[in-house]
Amino acid sequence: MAALKALCSCVDGACRSTELGSACASFLGSQCGWSGSSQQACGMRRSGSVHCKPYACRATSGGEGSDARSGAEPLLLRVARGEEAERTPVWLMRQAGRYMADFRKFSDRISFRERSETADIAIELSLQPWLAFRTDGVIMFSDILTPLPALGIEFTMVKGKGPVIPSPVRTLEDIQNLRTLDDPDQSLPFIRQILSSLRKEVEGKATLIGFIGTPWTLAAYAMEGSSDKNLIKTKSIMMHNPEILHAFLAHLTDALVTYVCHQIDSGAQIVQLFDSWAHHLSPEQFSEFSWPYAEQLIDRVKIARPDVPLIFHANGGTGKLHIVAQRKHQDVVVGLDWATEMREARSLLGPKTVLQGNVDPMVLFGSEDVIRRAAEQNIRDAGGNYHILNVGHGVVQGTPEESVKLFCQVARESGKLSPNVSPSAELLQV
Amino acid sequence: MAALKALCSCVDGACRSTELGSACASFLGSQCGWSGSSQQACGMRRSGSVHCKPYACRATSGGEGSDARSGAEPLLLRVARGEEAERTPVWLMRQAGRYMADFRKFSDRISFRERSETADIAIELSLQPWLAFRTDGVIMFSDILTPLPALGIEFTMVKGKGPVIPSPVRTLEDIQNLRTLDDPDQSLPFIRQILSSLRKEVEGKATLIGFIGTPWTLAAYAMEGSSDKNLIKTKSIMMHNPEILHAFLAHLTDALVTYVCHQIDSGAQIVQLFDSWAHHLSPEQFSEFSWPYAEQLIDRVKIARPDVPLIFHANGGTGKLHIVAQRKHQDVVVGLDWATEMREARSLLGPKTVLQGNVDPMVLFGSEDVIRRAAEQNIRDAGGNYHILNVGHGVVQGTPEESVKLFCQVARESGKLSPNVSPSAELLQV
Repeated sequence: MAALKALCSCVDGACRSTELGSACASFLGSQCGWSGSSQQACGMRRSGSVHCKPYACRATSGGEGSDARSGAEPLLLRVARGEEAERTPVWLMRQAGRYMADFRKFSDRISFRERSETADIAIELSLQPWLAFRTDGVIMFSDILTPLPALGIEFTMVKGKGPVIPSPVRTLEDIQNLRTLDDPDQSLPFIRQILSSLRKEVEGKATLIGFIGTPWTLAAYAMEGSSDKNLIKTKSIMMHNPEILHAFLAHLTDALVTYVCHQIDSGAQIVQLFDSWAHHLSPEQFSEFSWPYAEQLIDRVKIARPDVPLIFHANGGTGKLHIVAQRKHQDVVVGLDWATEMREARSLLGPKTVLQGNVDPMVLFGSEDVIRRAAEQNIRDAGGNYHILNVGHGVVQGTPEESVKLFCQVARESGKLSPNVSPSAELLQV
Repeated sequence: MAALKALCSCVDGACRSTELGSACASFLGSQCGWSGSSQQACGMRRSGSVHCKPYACRATSGGEGSDARSGAEPLLLRVARGEEAERTPVWLMRQAGRYMADFRKFSDRISFRERSETADIAIELSLQPWLAFRTDGVIMFSDILTPLPALGIEFTMVKGKGPVIPSPVRTLEDIQNLRTLDDPDQSLPFIRQILSSLRKEVEGKATLIGFIGTPWTLAAYAMEGSSDKNLIKTKSIMMHNPEILHAFLAHLTDALVTYVCHQIDSGAQIVQLFDSWAHHLSPEQFSEFSWPYAEQLIDRVKIARPDVPLIFHANGGTGKLHIVAQRKHQDVVVGLDWATEMREARSLLGPKTVLQGNVDPMVLFGSEDVIRRAAEQNIRDAGGNYHILNVGHGVVQGTPEESVKLFCQVARESGKLSPNVSPSAELLQV
C-alpha cells in the first residue's frame, strides 16, 4: 500500500502519475487499449478514492465482446462451463505481463512478495494485461507459493534464483508441525481484498480467474527448498520415504480445498490448478504423487462449489493425458502445454472436453502472419468450440506487446473461422 | 596428452598413479569392477607403452556376458540390430560418469574441450563406466558440439554456463561462409584415434557407441550462441526467417552424414543421434525442423553403412513419437525419455521396434529395492525383448555409483524375467 502511494499521487480525485506514468494514467487515452466510445467513456470517469487507485475508473469500460449490457455471463466462464459460444475466448498465462513495460515499472522497484501481497498493487498488476489486450480472462496476480506461509512455510523470492524456502519440509515431524488453513481471511487477508475488488472491476466484461499450485507442485517447492533442476531432495524422499511425501500431499490437499473455496467466495469465477512441476514426473509417478491429489481436490471443490469451473494445467502433461482423461469430473477444463498436438488432445479427451492452450509462446516473437496462422490453426484444431485460446506456457519476457494484442484479436475474430473436419483418432493410428 | 602425462606416471611399463590414484590403478584390484578370474587376469597384465595408458591392460578382461570367447557379436549390437537375445543389454547415458569420483579427478583439472579432444583422456573417460559397472555399451567421451569447429564454428565450454559460441550462425551469409566436413581425419583427428583404440579395448566384450547431435540440436546451439531457456534467438529466426534455419539444417545434415560414417569407419558399432533440444519444439515444429533432417541423415547413413544400427533419442520426444513411428527405416532404435510410458511406446511403435530407455535417472537415488523394481518393471513393460535398458536422460551428478552397478546387474539377470502380457493398445483406448 505504502509502496503504491509513493509511486502514484491523486489530485482532485483523479490519478496523476509520478514515476509510474502510463500505469497510473493509461485509462486517459490511447494506451488504455479500449476503442471507440468505450475508450472515451473510460477517460471521462476518474477515481474519487482518497487512496490512489489507478485502475478504479477502468472498470467502467466495456470492450468488444463484453457481455455487460446483455446481462449474460462472460464468454470465458460460459465456455469453461462447457457451453458452445459465439467465438473462442482468450487469455494468456502468466497472470501479469512480465513482458509489459508497465509491469516492469513495478517489478524493478517492489519485491515480488510485496507486489503479490499488497492488494492495490496486485489488483493493478492483474488488470494490466486486460486493459492492454482485452483478454477474456483476468487472473489474479499472485504466486503459487502464496498460501505456504499460512501453513508455517516461509519463503523469499531471490532475484535470478527463484523462491527459497529456508526451512524445507522433509520429515513427518515437519509435516506434523504445519498449520492447517482454517481462516484464510485471517492468515491471507489480501486474497479476499484482491479478488473482491477485481470482481467488481471486471464484472460482466471478463471472467475473474483464481489459481493455485497443485499439491505435488507445492510439495516439491517446499521439500526442495530452492531451485534444483532434478529435484534431488524431493525425489530422494519420493524414492526412500514416499509415505512422507504422501503425508505432505494430503496436508496440502486439505489446505488447498479451503484455499480454492476461499478464492471462489472472494470472487474468483474460475480457478486454475497449475501443476507446474509435472514435467519432473514420469506418468507412473504422476499417477501416484500428483494426479490423485489434484483429482481429490477437484472432487471436493466440485462438491462444495459445484458451479465453478476448474482448469487443470500440467506443465509436462504430454504423455500423461490418458491419466487425466479418466477423471471422475469430466467437466474439468484441461490446459495443454505446447508439446501436445491440439488435435491429439482433442482425440484423446473427447469432442466436448473444454481444452485450453496451447500455442508455443515463442510464436509471439514471429510476424503478424505467423501469429495469426498459429492461433487460427490452434482454434481450428481444437474443433472451433469447447476451447479457450492461450499459450502453452507463460508469455516470455521480451515478447512484443503488439504480438499479444494481435493474438487476442484473432480470438475475437474467431467466430468467422470454420473448424477443421471433426477431429479423428488418425494421429493415434500410426 | 600433456595433461594426462602430468597426471600419471609409468614405472617398469606399468601404470603408477600419482594424483589420479584409482583412475590409473583401478585395474590392479577391487576397484576394477571385474569379478573372479577376469579380475586376476586383468591385474596380471600391464601396459608397456611409453605413454601412460592406464586403460591399456584392461582390455584383456572379460566380464560376465562377454561374447569374446564365443565369437558372437556383442549383445548390445545384436539387440540393436533387432535380434532376440538371451537378456536385456544395458548402458547409461551420459557417456562418461560425471557422478564418478574417477571422472571428477579429470574434470576438476582439465577443461572439457581438452578432455574430449585429447585421445588418451577421452579413451580413459570412455572406459571408466564400463570398467566400473560392466555396461554392455561403451560410448565415446565427446561432446555433441565437437564437430562444429571443423565447420568453422568455434565454441568454448564455460563452467556453470555451458557452451558459448562467440560467433553465432544467424544469417544466410554466415551459413555460406561455413566449411564443409570433407576430411574429418584432418579436421578432427582425435575422433579416429579415440574410436579405433576403444574398439580394440572393448572388442567382443562390449559394443562401441559413437554419437552426434541432430541437425536441429546443433543448429539451435550454434544460432543461440549461449544458453537461453526459451531459445529466443533461434526461435525468432524460425518464426521470421525459417529459410535461414532450413539452409543451416541442410548444411549440418551433409556434414553429419560424413561425421557419422567417419565414426563408423573409425570403429563405432552403433551411432546414437541425440536430439537433446527436441523439447523446445512443438510436434509441428519437430515435423518441420528436426525430424526430416534426422531422418534424411539416417537414410543416407543407412545407404552408406547399412549394417550399423542407429539410435534416435529425442529429449522431449513424448507427443512426437507418432511422427518417428512413420520413419522409412523401421529398424532405427528409438530412445525414450522418461516422460513416455514404456508400454505406450511399445504400443505405438510396434512389438519389434527396438526401444531404449527409459528409467527416471532419479530412481538411482532410491533404495536397492526401488532400483530393482523400476528396472525390472521397465524391462517387463518393454516386452522382455527388443529393448536396451537405459535411463531416460543422463545420470545425475550425485548418483551413488553402487546404484548404477545394481541397475546394470538387473539387466544381467534379466534373462530370468518373464515379460508382461503382450503390450496392447489399452493405454490409448481411454
